[in-house]
Amino acid sequence: MDKYLEQQIKKNFGMKVRVMREQNELSQEALALMCGLDRTYIGGVERGERNISLINIHKIAIALGVSPTELFQ
Amino acid sequence: MDKYLEQQIKKNFGMKVRVMREQNELSQEALALMCGLDRTYIGGVERGERNISLINIHKIAIALGVSPTELFQ
Repeated sequence: MDKYLEQQIKKNFGMKVRVMREQNELSQEALALMCGLDRTYIGGVERGERNISLINIHKIAIALGVSPTELFQ
Repeated sequence: MDKYLEQQIKKNFGMKVRVMREQNELSQEALALMCGLDRTYIGGVERGERNISLINIHKIAIALGVSPTELFQ
């Protein structure tokens, strides 16, 4: 897999998290607290800088009240 | 998130990978080669021992010819 595609995958995922967080009217800090993650980590995920793991994908999905699959669409 | 739930998330994901790999009549080694990952890593994912990352989830999905969302169902 080339680096460009990897960047796109991370960016797409991050954009989806941002959109769904804003739909839930949550700040990055509020979402981070709900997930037990750091605010700067959530920021990095949303900017597509993080290769987030399976467990943290689920933590964010649970906090947003959605299925993990919705974060991939 | 408690450790039991984390284990379940990893186990469920791994079982899904195993089922879909077998449906595609691929060995762990063949799937690993297609993904550019190690056979022992694929084995660890299937046993629920690995907290797989977003990029590797996509590598496996691409190799299996499915959407990443199918690996969460």
